[in-house]
Amino acid sequence: MSSSMLTPTERTAIQRLPKRGVYDRVVLHEILDEALWCHVGFVSGGQPYVIPTIHARVGDRLYVHGSAASRMLRTLGRGVPVCVTVSLLDGLVLARSAFHHSMNYRSVVVLGTAAEVTEREEKTRALEAIVEHVVPGRSAEVRGPNELELKATTVLRLPIEEASAKVRTGPPIDDEEDYALPCWAGVLPLRLTPRKPEADPRLPAGVPVPAYVAAYRRP
Amino acid sequence: MSSSMLTPTERTAIQRLPKRGVYDRVVLHEILDEALWCHVGFVSGGQPYVIPTIHARVGDRLYVHGSAASRMLRTLGRGVPVCVTVSLLDGLVLARSAFHHSMNYRSVVVLGTAAEVTEREEKTRALEAIVEHVVPGRSAEVRGPNELELKATTVLRLPIEEASAKVRTGPPIDDEEDYALPCWAGVLPLRLTPRKPEADPRLPAGVPVPAYVAAYRRP
Repeated sequence: MSSSMLTPTERTAIQRLPKRGVYDRVVLHEILDEALWCHVGFVSGGQPYVIPTIHARVGDRLYVHGSAASRMLRTLGRGVPVCVTVSLLDGLVLARSAFHHSMNYRSVVVLGTAAEVTEREEKTRALEAIVEHVVPGRSAEVRGPNELELKATTVLRLPIEEASAKVRTGPPIDDEEDYALPCWAGVLPLRLTPRKPEADPRLPAGVPVPAYVAAYRRP
Repeated sequence: MSSSMLTPTERTAIQRLPKRGVYDRVVLHEILDEALWCHVGFVSGGQPYVIPTIHARVGDRLYVHGSAASRMLRTLGRGVPVCVTVSLLDGLVLARSAFHHSMNYRSVVVLGTAAEVTEREEKTRALEAIVEHVVPGRSAEVRGPNELELKATTVLRLPIEEASAKVRTGPPIDDEEDYALPCWAGVLPLRLTPRKPEADPRLPAGVPVPAYVAAYRRP
């Protein structure tokens, strides 16, 4: 087993449709990098919560950030178990039976315990990575965080160790006898697509749209 | 307070940036209906799990489905607390400072306890609603579920009662002194967009792409 492979645990081994399971770090990293946002799951008072937020990956570490006052950040900062899930929808899979309808997707689940990043250098690098994750090229152009902003922001680190991906691609798989049915079947690909940039109403005239915005696309 | 308003609980009241909180059923329903998929959070052995899956709304009920053998469906069928979250990304908000970067989004969080749908009529209606949620017009054209498929599928129902939405719209909000910075600022709108339908390789020649596929768009 190459060192790029994660070891599935009882908690991350894909049980349903194991053929869709992927444990290759390279694939996981690509999915984590392409996804603009993630869903963070944590437990508070016995109740699970799932909150959408922005993440960034640096090597084998996943970072999320937020207000130091947020319930999610305060809860996670205490070192409780967390699940970070990203999912990319690639297409709708239209089969000849209702039962075999599906979606083409790529998802990653990372389990573990998050820790607050207290070291200043790592914290500023993580915050820069989050801006660059969303809009590569942006961080060099904007004002970086000042002391008050750094203090108001909590950054959490989660190792990408106990993790797995699940991927479905390709056309529908129908029951053999259903292929004779007369209805159209196939895949409708979907992609998150940028539209025309909308300048801030307070932007002075003549400030050009930067290339990294005008030609925006996910990796 | 109109009956269309949900009552926020301590668990669903938006604490951070309360101006973004929405409790109007109409808005929640629109977000739930537009979102193609959701993220389901549940706890098993003290560990939270967040799994992407398809949902559908019928009135004040949210349905999810899956293999009767799946860990998620088996766990949730036992009546444990669940959190279903949907999120729609509408745009990247590029401010003049790294700190004020944001996203325009609409999200809904539904808390509660799911119950397995055992009544046949409700189960078949829920499964049809799930197909129609993804591709309106599709269910009339395809073979419906047979007895074996119904048995192999578990459907869960979650009331949309303890729930809230969170919405951000509009341009970046910068610190007053940062408006003088020379960089471009504004919003890059994003939308999940269909591409050219890909016919199943086994589709006979001459079967036309249906209008509900060719002109696909979310509500």
